Amino acid sequence: GEQPFYILGPCALEQEDFAWEMARSLKEICERVGVPFLFKASYDKANRTSVTSFRGPGVREGCRILAEIGKELGVPVVTDVHTAEEAAIAAEYIELLQIPAFLCRQTDLLEACAKTGRPVNIKKGQFLAPWDTANIADKMRSFGCDNFMLCERGTSFGYNNLVVDMRGLYWMKQEGFPVVFDATHSVQRPGGLGGTTGGDGELAPILANAAMAVGIDGVFMEVHKDPAHALSDGPNQIPLAQIEATLAKLQAIRQAVS
Amino acid sequence: GEQPFYILGPCALEQEDFAWEMARSLKEICERVGVPFLFKASYDKANRTSVTSFRGPGVREGCRILAEIGKELGVPVVTDVHTAEEAAIAAEYIELLQIPAFLCRQTDLLEACAKTGRPVNIKKGQFLAPWDTANIADKMRSFGCDNFMLCERGTSFGYNNLVVDMRGLYWMKQEGFPVVFDATHSVQRPGGLGGTTGGDGELAPILANAAMAVGIDGVFMEVHKDPAHALSDGPNQIPLAQIEATLAKLQAIRQAVS
Amino acid sequence: GEQPFYILGPCALEQEDFAWEMARSLKEICERVGVPFLFKASYDKANRTSVTSFRGPGVREGCRILAEIGKELGVPVVTDVHTAEEAAIAAEYIELLQIPAFLCRQTDLLEACAKTGRPVNIKKGQFLAPWDTANIADKMRSFGCDNFMLCERGTSFGYNNLVVDMRGLYWMKQEGFPVVFDATHSVQRPGGLGGTTGGDGELAPILANAAMAVGIDGVFMEVHKDPAHALSDGPNQIPLAQIEATLAKLQAIRQAVS
Amino acid sequence: GEQPFYILGPCALEQEDFAWEMARSLKEICERVGVPFLFKASYDKANRTSVTSFRGPGVREGCRILAEIGKELGVPVVTDVHTAEEAAIAAEYIELLQIPAFLCRQTDLLEACAKTGRPVNIKKGQFLAPWDTANIADKMRSFGCDNFMLCERGTSFGYNNLVVDMRGLYWMKQEGFPVVFDATHSVQRPGGLGGTTGGDGELAPILANAAMAVGIDGVFMEVHKDPAHALSDGPNQIPLAQIEATLAKLQAIRQAVS
Repeated sequence: GEQPFYILGPCALEQEDFAWEMARSLKEICERVGVPFLFKASYDKANRTSVTSFRGPGVREGCRILAEIGKELGVPVVTDVHTAEEAAIAAEYIELLQIPAFLCRQTDLLEACAKTGRPVNIKKGQFLAPWDTANIADKMRSFGCDNFMLCERGTSFGYNNLVVDMRGLYWMKQEGFPVVFDATHSVQRPGGLGGTTGGDGELAPILANAAMAVGIDGVFMEVHKDPAHALSDGPNQIPLAQIEATLAKLQAIRQAVS
Repeated sequence: GEQPFYILGPCALEQEDFAWEMARSLKEICERVGVPFLFKASYDKANRTSVTSFRGPGVREGCRILAEIGKELGVPVVTDVHTAEEAAIAAEYIELLQIPAFLCRQTDLLEACAKTGRPVNIKKGQFLAPWDTANIADKMRSFGCDNFMLCERGTSFGYNNLVVDMRGLYWMKQEGFPVVFDATHSVQRPGGLGGTTGGDGELAPILANAAMAVGIDGVFMEVHKDPAHALSDGPNQIPLAQIEATLAKLQAIRQAVS
Repeated sequence: GEQPFYILGPCALEQEDFAWEMARSLKEICERVGVPFLFKASYDKANRTSVTSFRGPGVREGCRILAEIGKELGVPVVTDVHTAEEAAIAAEYIELLQIPAFLCRQTDLLEACAKTGRPVNIKKGQFLAPWDTANIADKMRSFGCDNFMLCERGTSFGYNNLVVDMRGLYWMKQEGFPVVFDATHSVQRPGGLGGTTGGDGELAPILANAAMAVGIDGVFMEVHKDPAHALSDGPNQIPLAQIEATLAKLQAIRQAVS
Repeated sequence: GEQPFYILGPCALEQEDFAWEMARSLKEICERVGVPFLFKASYDKANRTSVTSFRGPGVREGCRILAEIGKELGVPVVTDVHTAEEAAIAAEYIELLQIPAFLCRQTDLLEACAKTGRPVNIKKGQFLAPWDTANIADKMRSFGCDNFMLCERGTSFGYNNLVVDMRGLYWMKQEGFPVVFDATHSVQRPGGLGGTTGGDGELAPILANAAMAVGIDGVFMEVHKDPAHALSDGPNQIPLAQIEATLAKLQAIRQAVS
């Protein structure tokens, strides 16, 4: 089949020069490995566990930064939106809008994203079955949008834990839309570390391998040059120094199952 | 201890005279049983499974209706809000604001509700552990709000199913805030019936009994004079004809455990 | 309806005089509260987490002790059996045989218990849905046994945790057989404490209250005069000093829902 | 690393000539693909959902058949044992003993298997966390057995469903013993089809691909020349006609991740 694409970048737009540095490094790496690359970063972490957590530069400023990076490097850029208003603003700047998992059932947000004309990556809620994404797809189509993808990021499994049901990737694929696997958030341990959200960073590339062996259209992975000092989702991000080897292995698995 | 309170009413503000009729009937019944009553109805079902589902009259019109009912009958009124803007509007009219479960981690919405000065009932997300509500409570207090309650409405349990962990009511109570049990949504089968959300209405009062035996401060139950023809959440609402017996049994259990 | 019955006793037959002491105390308490009492203790903890854990005196010696206690005190006695051979031996001495949850699908063990002619209490496996007990009931009837009960003891919920779905008690009851709620093992945290099985003893009576409010035929609770020094399942057993108040509250709830 | 091994064969020893035919076919296929092959079949399905289900020829007769097949074809043979007595009998004939998932905590059965001196494949119970297998490993070592492997076959996930947590394969591997992935039983839907156990046969090879991408030592798959007419576990077995392609893809993935 077609080449899988990779949505890569740091969890948050921590600082402008940090974002540029990450984007340039990832672009070079993806060119070396020979894979399609989209740059991702969030301008607002709107559902942090704690109110004192870092949130980001906000929608207008964050999208401006991303758009400049995208234009300069010739790379499509991706970001999360949280309200109908943000969707409209972000769509002025951003190639691919993303709907966070907790918000995937909010009809007004889906409609606002659909109406922008931009493609949309919709994260499947941790509380949804794989086949429940059919209802999301129906909503998007009824709002005139056919250009969207569905993204797995783990399912609630007991308390403070998520599990990735690899069968879900197969079932979601049956609906005929591209399926993306978000390896970073799939290894989160929600609420597990007092006021922050813990995870198992070393498992993110391993789950990505498994998902690629099942068959997916794209991989989402957060990458940070220094995960231990990241301002959000530190424990889950893949170190920049490891991403090239990670991508190479994913491509080899893709080859094996094609 | 104190008398438990009851948040009762139809899922949605289907029509103005329907809302008046339900509120009058419920007020009479609660007076006969001798329990504190708050009237609840939603002006917008913002996260329906399907885009063609009934949604409601919208925030301004819905809150006007509820406020008139509340004033005339001398009953506090309750409704859900979905955005910061809606919170501000609803707070002009409504005594108790409610934050839907999917949105319980959206910091801006919590802040907007906290800032209204109104009390807030926060539904615990289906994806949260009971102790994760401590993070929600911390957010509310950091926004200057001490007048809120935490509401259990079931936890994700496999696909298309929720389970109520009765231990959770006990654990949530440890945080020192009133705990409400939402019997109606706890028996939902999310996504289970194609494009609508199925449930097990006959089980709602049974789970309320169990929760009362554990020890709670309030009960939330949706009541409809004709659940089979309700415009939303039909299968889960308690028939109006049964609510008096349901309340009497709950009060008897309360007596037994006090 | 009929009076509920109570299966009470220490987890294990730690020592002969300890068993006598527990049985005498429990008999007196149950007489004061006015409830039917069956005395339970295990002669072998056959599936302990660790191989170095205490197991017990074995089938023949353990059943002899239980039978003497039962005869002297005029109390029916209950114990677990783990193989077809043990079932035959235990049935010579014991009024009510119990099938452990992990073994509830072992056809030969069900058959051996059914063939003894003794009533059987079958614990529902942590891996079974409430309606799956219909298959167990069918097996028992096909082996000529109509005199059995089904017992809830929690369902797997993520890792190292169980949840009691109170709806399950209602669904199990639909099959027409007595339903027992095992409050002690329902609050276990399987595998949670290194080599032993942790739990939340203070929650056992609370879950029993909830189950009684739903409607059950019997309650199973392990009771120990000094849970902190119990040789097995210490953290989950109810202290003997609290059992009278626990039973009184359960009876009051029963009254309230009858 | 080393070549992974494959435990393949029909669920049950339906008939003697059927077993021979399956073993010969699988041996030829594994030789063509160039992978180590062990032949598996069960002599007794001891925990069938329904009492009227097919069980098999019994331990002595079943092991005789397997031993003859193994000797003639030069292939190690594998079978499940359910009691200490069966373990002793089977060990006279069989190279690799298997402990069923429901029985993985039964200390006496573990001990009996350990004492035979044969290697043992222990299925992880559907009710256990991956790290709980450390307790099983400790038991085996304390009984003098170091020659065993741990096998994942899915974890309880809500009702009538299992999920494979691919992280679990990684965690189980940390204990230093070979890890096997049982693709067939991992796609079971326990209790899902009235009196039989339903599944999703087409997903078995897909989950095996994912597990191989994570990294495992062996794969267990049930194979049948005509799954639709199998006497047990029909819907989950891989058709014989597809097994060669399945093995080839698994080997290609192994190559990609090595």
